[in-house]
Amino acid sequence: MATRRYAFGRVDEATHPDSMRATLAEFASTFIFVFAGEGSGLALDKIYVDEGLSAGQLLALALAHAFALFAAVSASMHVSGGHVNPAVTFGALIGGRISVVRAIYYWIAQLLGAIVAALILRLVTNNMRPNSFHVSVGLGAGHGLVLEIIMTFGLMYTVYATAIDPKRGTNGALAPLAIGLIVGANILVGGPFDGACMNPALAFGPSLVGWRWKYHWIYWVGPLIGAALASLIYEYVVIPTEPPHPHQPLAPEDY
Amino acid sequence: MATRRYAFGRVDEATHPDSMRATLAEFASTFIFVFAGEGSGLALDKIYVDEGLSAGQLLALALAHAFALFAAVSASMHVSGGHVNPAVTFGALIGGRISVVRAIYYWIAQLLGAIVAALILRLVTNNMRPNSFHVSVGLGAGHGLVLEIIMTFGLMYTVYATAIDPKRGTNGALAPLAIGLIVGANILVGGPFDGACMNPALAFGPSLVGWRWKYHWIYWVGPLIGAALASLIYEYVVIPTEPPHPHQPLAPEDY
Amino acid sequence: MATRRYAFGRVDEATHPDSMRATLAEFASTFIFVFAGEGSGLALDKIYVDEGLSAGQLLALALAHAFALFAAVSASMHVSGGHVNPAVTFGALIGGRISVVRAIYYWIAQLLGAIVAALILRLVTNNMRPNSFHVSVGLGAGHGLVLEIIMTFGLMYTVYATAIDPKRGTNGALAPLAIGLIVGANILVGGPFDGACMNPALAFGPSLVGWRWKYHWIYWVGPLIGAALASLIYEYVVIPTEPPHPHQPLAPEDY
Amino acid sequence: MATRRYAFGRVDEATHPDSMRATLAEFASTFIFVFAGEGSGLALDKIYVDEGLSAGQLLALALAHAFALFAAVSASMHVSGGHVNPAVTFGALIGGRISVVRAIYYWIAQLLGAIVAALILRLVTNNMRPNSFHVSVGLGAGHGLVLEIIMTFGLMYTVYATAIDPKRGTNGALAPLAIGLIVGANILVGGPFDGACMNPALAFGPSLVGWRWKYHWIYWVGPLIGAALASLIYEYVVIPTEPPHPHQPLAPEDY
Repeated sequence: MATRRYAFGRVDEATHPDSMRATLAEFASTFIFVFAGEGSGLALDKIYVDEGLSAGQLLALALAHAFALFAAVSASMHVSGGHVNPAVTFGALIGGRISVVRAIYYWIAQLLGAIVAALILRLVTNNMRPNSFHVSVGLGAGHGLVLEIIMTFGLMYTVYATAIDPKRGTNGALAPLAIGLIVGANILVGGPFDGACMNPALAFGPSLVGWRWKYHWIYWVGPLIGAALASLIYEYVVIPTEPPHPHQPLAPEDY
Repeated sequence: MATRRYAFGRVDEATHPDSMRATLAEFASTFIFVFAGEGSGLALDKIYVDEGLSAGQLLALALAHAFALFAAVSASMHVSGGHVNPAVTFGALIGGRISVVRAIYYWIAQLLGAIVAALILRLVTNNMRPNSFHVSVGLGAGHGLVLEIIMTFGLMYTVYATAIDPKRGTNGALAPLAIGLIVGANILVGGPFDGACMNPALAFGPSLVGWRWKYHWIYWVGPLIGAALASLIYEYVVIPTEPPHPHQPLAPEDY
Repeated sequence: MATRRYAFGRVDEATHPDSMRATLAEFASTFIFVFAGEGSGLALDKIYVDEGLSAGQLLALALAHAFALFAAVSASMHVSGGHVNPAVTFGALIGGRISVVRAIYYWIAQLLGAIVAALILRLVTNNMRPNSFHVSVGLGAGHGLVLEIIMTFGLMYTVYATAIDPKRGTNGALAPLAIGLIVGANILVGGPFDGACMNPALAFGPSLVGWRWKYHWIYWVGPLIGAALASLIYEYVVIPTEPPHPHQPLAPEDY
Repeated sequence: MATRRYAFGRVDEATHPDSMRATLAEFASTFIFVFAGEGSGLALDKIYVDEGLSAGQLLALALAHAFALFAAVSASMHVSGGHVNPAVTFGALIGGRISVVRAIYYWIAQLLGAIVAALILRLVTNNMRPNSFHVSVGLGAGHGLVLEIIMTFGLMYTVYATAIDPKRGTNGALAPLAIGLIVGANILVGGPFDGACMNPALAFGPSLVGWRWKYHWIYWVGPLIGAALASLIYEYVVIPTEPPHPHQPLAPEDY
């Protein structure tokens, strides 16, 4: 599996001179995304101190995550592949699209970006304690786990089809937007049930800074399983076995 | 009609080695779309157990469908043409753009994707019964039928102009987004009147899992008529009769 | 002025074999846009029979117009230039980008599309009387007129820069989206003051079918003046005088 | 630093014949953006005269700014680089991407555009006094300053990565949208805390016309620091040191 189709993606990547720049790009983009995602929740707490979730608030959360993820992926797609999410990096690793070394670099950068975002949010909001993801009343951990698997499956399937598939063609031009907006759509579904995380870094930074760990494992296990499932299905079933068309050269993001 | 312009689209398609991959892509994309569309309704039921529809809720429903359909079409455009909707497949068939065999494959995949999405939603929501489309108080079935015809006409016209027309040029780059957002716009119109379905699979999966069939026929007949009308008008009146410009090669989605 | 730069745009256009197809495309796209725009107002009346305008309702109106206009422009850009608005056609005429004959064809098609949309909305809503644009309490006709001039200036400036300017380059790929979303943004500004029309066809169809004519002239005079101002400034001041770069061939929409 | 890689960007730009056109484009685009941004706040005051900020209002403000900025950047990207913001111009200057002379032209144009927009808004709203940015109750000026630095960092990082980086490739096609939507996302975070300005022109025009200057310095110092930080990091750490790929010619916006 390691050396098919994009040999340099497996063999050279760990020592490629771009690796540190890509890692920095993942740090910056995850910082930008988590700042907006987690921050939008604190913003709603600021204006609605003691009300429950309304449709308007759910929309604000969904659009803040969607728009910021779109911008963060756009800003890093050509440098690092635009993962901005440890689960997406895991999916790319499972599909044989990045090396283990690079995946580890990305994971560290993504978690650090999320932690720094949560710390700065605590500072600028005059010490508001970050929220953490949790499963709603009436549901068990198992419901949340399956929901995270399914939603992250949809996200990773979209990432694979629009940003990784070498036969995606011009269709890939909208990849960062499709990635951002499927996360927004899934928040409109999963938000009231389990918070709709789909991203272990988004869960980890605020949990660490707010020191809230109940249910935390769900937001690692679910997204990693969902991303792995989508990658295996897309890489080994959907992607054609023929080599890429000669007129479609390897783009920088086809690492 | 069968063999003009894109002969291989009629003759080879049924036996093309990509057919199964395309069918799988339709299954996965319809699953992703119906999960978000139907799921967003259940999410609002979770937070607003007994209120009526508000503008904020209508917006949440419209954006969940629009964003998820955009991602689902993006993810399948280069593999299957990005139909994600039995009515769109019917329109492509009426316009002579796909074969009957491939249309049947797609229809089965789309309906299965919708059913699996509705089943998983029932599981993760701890057995909430799916909603089904229906016509609002004060209107008759005829109003709903005409509304579905008109709204699906707008959707299929957009699909034809931006994703099928061989003379669409660079304008086609935004096709998945135009397709997603016209559905969002039409939900903001038709939602309070008849639910604004435009997609028999979106109606069928939840109706089957929730076993609610009243008015169900409207959401098959209306979309199929609307899509057929748009295809006939676009294919035989709007598309120029000259052959495609030689500098505009057949893209993968020009099946 | 008539024959500079795009001679065929002035000389051949009136008799070009594409003229009727372009006219039909303007009819269909204006129908799709007005159906969603006017229809979204009726939808809110259906769910909020006697409340005033809320922020959520303003958002629903803005997004319905923005998303539908984006799709309608996308669907007609490569056929007719994607005007979908008599004021935009007037601006293109003032800038010397289309012929008088073609402008007249477009105007008729746009008005007919808007009328048919308003009639069908009256049918499917069981005879709800269409709303018409008007100036809010506390403002005079002059305020509404200036507001329409300014908002349509912003729209036409965006159209010129992203869809007409021969030096727009790859930047033009997003033109239909920029056109749709500037209308959405302007509705969020002008909606509570004068309805934020920017499009005489959008005003005319519902006014005719609902037979409400007070203030109607504002929504013709304002948009036409605003579009003309933007076209004159962009065409004669912003567009460089050098010929287009030889590597940038005339796209179909560069008529 | 001055003459590396894009020598003409430093040496010729001040006397380039396009300079005045670019300056005019910045004026027009900043006018369009500030009109919608500031105007959307007045629109909400019109419909909700004495209520506080709700999630729906926050969304309306965020989308008005995001959509209008996207259109304004789209309309000026190929002419001036699409800054529409004195802080972005400052970042481009710090990164060595424009000359001091051109930066001064842009700043004057941006401030004038914002002033004219605020004046016209005062006229069309029958003399409503413009709002100004301020820090919310419970927070100090320092919180607002750090928040503006961080949010503008995210904006300028996105601008650099998607619109300036010569290695951005096809990823740059979505640049104006990424720029608009990161501003929308950040408003959903910072709106309830400090108004989320990120743009000294957006603060200056309404402050001048409404003559409200408390906290005004925050909205200059914060955005300028944030933009400078992002430019230094992106220009000197993220951008590879190799020359641009020969197959990727200089686009018009690569000044």
